[in-house]
Amino acid sequence: MEDRGIMEQLTRVPAHQRVLGALASKDRNGMLLAMATALEQHAQRLFAANRKDIAAADQAALATPLRKRLVFDEKKLAGVCDGIRQVASLRDPIGRIRERRLLDDQLLLERVDVPIGVIGMVFESRPDALVQIISLCLKSGNAIILKGGREALNTNRELVAVIGESLQPFAAGSAWIVHLESREDVRFLLELDDIVDLLIPRGSNEFVRYIMDNTKIPVLGHADGICALYVDSEAPIDLAVTVAVDSKCQYPAVCNAVETVLVHAAVAPTFLPRFKEALAPWSVIIHGDRRVGAIIECIEAVEDDWDTEYLGYEIAIRIVDSLQEAMDHIAAHGSGHTDCIVTSHEANARKFMREVDSADVFWNCSTRFADGFRYGLGAEVGVSTQKIHARGPVGLDGLVIGKWLLSGNGHIVDTYEKGRAFKHEELPLEGVGLLGEVE
Amino acid sequence: MEDRGIMEQLTRVPAHQRVLGALASKDRNGMLLAMATALEQHAQRLFAANRKDIAAADQAALATPLRKRLVFDEKKLAGVCDGIRQVASLRDPIGRIRERRLLDDQLLLERVDVPIGVIGMVFESRPDALVQIISLCLKSGNAIILKGGREALNTNRELVAVIGESLQPFAAGSAWIVHLESREDVRFLLELDDIVDLLIPRGSNEFVRYIMDNTKIPVLGHADGICALYVDSEAPIDLAVTVAVDSKCQYPAVCNAVETVLVHAAVAPTFLPRFKEALAPWSVIIHGDRRVGAIIECIEAVEDDWDTEYLGYEIAIRIVDSLQEAMDHIAAHGSGHTDCIVTSHEANARKFMREVDSADVFWNCSTRFADGFRYGLGAEVGVSTQKIHARGPVGLDGLVIGKWLLSGNGHIVDTYEKGRAFKHEELPLEGVGLLGEVE
Repeated sequence: MEDRGIMEQLTRVPAHQRVLGALASKDRNGMLLAMATALEQHAQRLFAANRKDIAAADQAALATPLRKRLVFDEKKLAGVCDGIRQVASLRDPIGRIRERRLLDDQLLLERVDVPIGVIGMVFESRPDALVQIISLCLKSGNAIILKGGREALNTNRELVAVIGESLQPFAAGSAWIVHLESREDVRFLLELDDIVDLLIPRGSNEFVRYIMDNTKIPVLGHADGICALYVDSEAPIDLAVTVAVDSKCQYPAVCNAVETVLVHAAVAPTFLPRFKEALAPWSVIIHGDRRVGAIIECIEAVEDDWDTEYLGYEIAIRIVDSLQEAMDHIAAHGSGHTDCIVTSHEANARKFMREVDSADVFWNCSTRFADGFRYGLGAEVGVSTQKIHARGPVGLDGLVIGKWLLSGNGHIVDTYEKGRAFKHEELPLEGVGLLGEVE
Repeated sequence: MEDRGIMEQLTRVPAHQRVLGALASKDRNGMLLAMATALEQHAQRLFAANRKDIAAADQAALATPLRKRLVFDEKKLAGVCDGIRQVASLRDPIGRIRERRLLDDQLLLERVDVPIGVIGMVFESRPDALVQIISLCLKSGNAIILKGGREALNTNRELVAVIGESLQPFAAGSAWIVHLESREDVRFLLELDDIVDLLIPRGSNEFVRYIMDNTKIPVLGHADGICALYVDSEAPIDLAVTVAVDSKCQYPAVCNAVETVLVHAAVAPTFLPRFKEALAPWSVIIHGDRRVGAIIECIEAVEDDWDTEYLGYEIAIRIVDSLQEAMDHIAAHGSGHTDCIVTSHEANARKFMREVDSADVFWNCSTRFADGFRYGLGAEVGVSTQKIHARGPVGLDGLVIGKWLLSGNGHIVDTYEKGRAFKHEELPLEGVGLLGEVE
């Protein structure tokens, strides 16, 4: 911990969150718009801070992709401000009624969505990610404790300062945002399981894996994205080539790009040469098992290749003799992210979609579609391969949780224990609920 | 670990779960009915095993409530078999379509419910809990790793044996059930975060707290149930007394019974004497703050009383000067389980329901309604005060998670990156989805 001041700040976060979470939708949206305006007004402060980070990065000879992510310029600013205004325009994720049941006369039960509470976010060096997560938390009434990469410290600090100032005129203020600055603070944050309800790490696989392995706080995220595409015995070859090429080459540095292609032996002699040819423009390095090597020229795959996320123009190809063998391969080597079958055989597709235990299971389309914006979620909080709460691309829904409201007129349990039966009548979910309209 | 055999069994559990999870609804229901029949047929084996446990308990002079929970007799057997058949008759929790969106022509997205995977359950000495959780897992296609209390070891072992035998004729067999027997196995289970997706502990507060504090696996459960009832300045006094008495006395040994009553100063002189009188038949011990003590005779409350779950005929009462003070008390001392306001002032009730951050927030009815069966959930998996996945009384919904299915016709992302817009057309959720009907 940097000082006792931060500990005190953190202890008070839940109380500040309750104030934020109780605001009406229009108040939270008003705060979002004020944030965007302030960021634009104070652009020069932000750019000046960012120049310090960039200068330090250049001195440290930071790798190009990292340096690129670090830049916060006019274009990035316009992007984040657009993003904030879009978030403001989205439907309120709070107060949505998910269940409504009349337990008995005048005894009304509702399950409504409410903020989770306190979100922790640990991310690497993209300052725009900081603004995005603050806006998603504000929209959904959650407090946020942030720790960004030290390479972006000056930019992040200035962003938080400008956002904080813009929120001062509002009743909820900005004490629901806490920015941690030192590296030791990360270890400290991971131990705050009494304060933090959900952690969202963003960054490299190793980084996310480290977070997952070192905290008891639930994590929304994914470490690996080892996605497979299975070309079935009944695959239309043209379609298979098109989809496989897009899945691998459209943008290979991301988690939903394909790393492994499994080809049914029956179509391998037709598919493989066409696929290799189609990959040629990107000079994709091919690792194939022996049977693949008998059909096309490639590097002989080793066992490790089936567990490698290349994140580049490199692919592993294996020949299988059945749909079951393909599914077994995915169960053994996949990371539960996105897997796809190409086939014109409907029953095979359904079997694959049912039995492959991944967040996203596709049929005859590119794995690259696994994305919150393409799915139409409005905003993407993250992509999760965890098995509880939310899975796959996660929208604002991932930042809320149910709360049960029950309204009676002096109803007591004793009455029902003595024989009265419940009615349990399902009611429509539309209309104003027990919370009423918030003024 | 008892032996390497169990480790091998555990490693294979995810594969067995996949087979189970892929079964049609009617197959899982058929297995449930076979389980119930077998338990009835082999009643004498079960009772004999239970007699061994009871004899050991008597020799160890086990406390009466513990011994009572340990008994597995005709009545308990009838109860669990009824329970299993009820679970079989419930709607299938798997395959339910939660979102359906046409991303573009012939590009259909669905989010469907699927099993979580592997559930771990650690519980104390109720053998009927073992049968219940196996049946809920079977219904929802989840594998289950169980560790029961050692006092019930003979009964649990026999129950698992009879259930296992009854499932042999089915394709999915019974290898998706693993019964751990030794105490060291619990510690071991808590470390299986690569295999176990969700832990459900049942037992005393200390027991559940121990589980929560010693695992990285997500936990569905609650340690404490410090529930408060707030009698507002605008409370109808008769109703307040009735609801408060039921909340405290109807069954005080459970988590949803009230431990603290907060009374607005304006109604304290009227409410308190009437409440005290109503509690008299149960000889409830009253701990009151000084202002309470000035109105009714009681033990002077100490700070600890606000954080104590009495679980008996004992209650803490405090006078507050505002709704806000009551909510602040609940935020500081409550356990996020169930809290209630009694008032005829609608705006106060709505403020309370909105701002109190508990799993169940009630208005003018007993806290004892916080229960899966009373809520009409069909079956109760547990009660959770966690802030993600599921909260409050949790039904079978808590044992499933979403999976995204996307079906296209050669669709690739490149098309949309080059300018084509998505349609994102919401579709009705009814009808057969992408998985089709499972034969």
